[in-house]
Amino acid sequence: MEKVRPQFVLFGDSITQQSFRPGGWGAALADTYSRKADVIVRGYGGYNTRWALFLLNHLFSLNCTAPPAAVTIFFGANDAALLGRTSERQYVPLEEYKENLRKIVKHLKECSAMILVVLITPPPVDEQGRTEYARSVYGEKAMELPERTNDNTGAYARQCVELAKELHIPCIDLWSKMQETTGWQKKFLSDGLHLTEEGNSVVHEEVVQVLTDAHLRAEAMPYDFPHHSEIDSDHPEKAFEPKS
Amino acid sequence: MEKVRPQFVLFGDSITQQSFRPGGWGAALADTYSRKADVIVRGYGGYNTRWALFLLNHLFSLNCTAPPAAVTIFFGANDAALLGRTSERQYVPLEEYKENLRKIVKHLKECSAMILVVLITPPPVDEQGRTEYARSVYGEKAMELPERTNDNTGAYARQCVELAKELHIPCIDLWSKMQETTGWQKKFLSDGLHLTEEGNSVVHEEVVQVLTDAHLRAEAMPYDFPHHSEIDSDHPEKAFEPKS
Repeated sequence: MEKVRPQFVLFGDSITQQSFRPGGWGAALADTYSRKADVIVRGYGGYNTRWALFLLNHLFSLNCTAPPAAVTIFFGANDAALLGRTSERQYVPLEEYKENLRKIVKHLKECSAMILVVLITPPPVDEQGRTEYARSVYGEKAMELPERTNDNTGAYARQCVELAKELHIPCIDLWSKMQETTGWQKKFLSDGLHLTEEGNSVVHEEVVQVLTDAHLRAEAMPYDFPHHSEIDSDHPEKAFEPKS
Repeated sequence: MEKVRPQFVLFGDSITQQSFRPGGWGAALADTYSRKADVIVRGYGGYNTRWALFLLNHLFSLNCTAPPAAVTIFFGANDAALLGRTSERQYVPLEEYKENLRKIVKHLKECSAMILVVLITPPPVDEQGRTEYARSVYGEKAMELPERTNDNTGAYARQCVELAKELHIPCIDLWSKMQETTGWQKKFLSDGLHLTEEGNSVVHEEVVQVLTDAHLRAEAMPYDFPHHSEIDSDHPEKAFEPKS
């Protein structure tokens, strides 16, 4: 495939990996930028920022001749797993999470200073939803204590917001944004952690807003080739001639 | 972006362009091949095969070093517009449609003989649905005579099927397949021509079947990087070392 459109890369954990499921924010983004940009998913379920660092050189080569126009970095839900609970192997200390994010941003900026790098905080956690989910999967063997708490994930979200301020890059504070809506726990989260269709819509809207603010507004971007109505059916070749 | 996964390119008209809308077959395909292949949309609403030829060298360079693993070619719905009716500017004669498709396949095979080229016939046309749609948009000004008929589109579908046989490449005969289901008119078509979510599901299933038959079965394809459960949290680097 030749590169004829700018690329938006979605780099993150399962919430990014699942973004092309029905109602997903990745698919919606691809549709918003239909014929204008390609949306490439690089979501890795279960990954934290520490493991994500191992992917950087493979996914974003420093010798890349055609860097993406924008990259979303959406980690933290796994980093914020609690020590001593069922997901502790995914845990990354708070300070390290921030430094890992910094390394990811730095790497992308080294690929090209022109890449729009967008940080996204983890969504809030509905602890009751997590417990219900664990019981539905593991029955009575499910641990009584949640493996993630909303307060703890909030601390990670704040580190992410703070880093974006330090680096002067845009950030979507999903953790705060979602909690502005009453009933966010069930409205936006399907199992206390992953997104419902409405939760996906929030991410989609927020990402479109950031891209728009950064002069990547879909309506203002050109189609990759003429709209069919611009093609003269008697002389179609004219519509495809290089413009002088 | 480095190329770390095989690419599937969806080349076609509006039915391909819209394939990342909610319930769309393109998004569903991207989800089926999550972490295994990238799905790239090259759908051009309103285009017929004559106009598609102008895109070939831009989209699929003959000097391409990393050709896609598979390309779906999904045209014909516009070629089959009737002369003397509202969409006649999109009309392409039956024989030319077949020859244009042949040129597209030939071009792709010249890019790389390894590309799996999949032809898809246009879906059937629900003439009543088209008329209702025209009235809903144009009111009393809507033409009484349909701009496409199911019989005529069927002739184009047969040319597509025939060409696939001649060239020994797979073909999805969507026109026939959909009409096997009672009530296909409203079940699979939203405006007599474009697909409902159920219509999209048919295309998704058929494409997955063809890919599977051609040894591109999702379950058999490797993840691009280790599953998170394979990462030793004490020595994560081990999971990312090149395998000897």
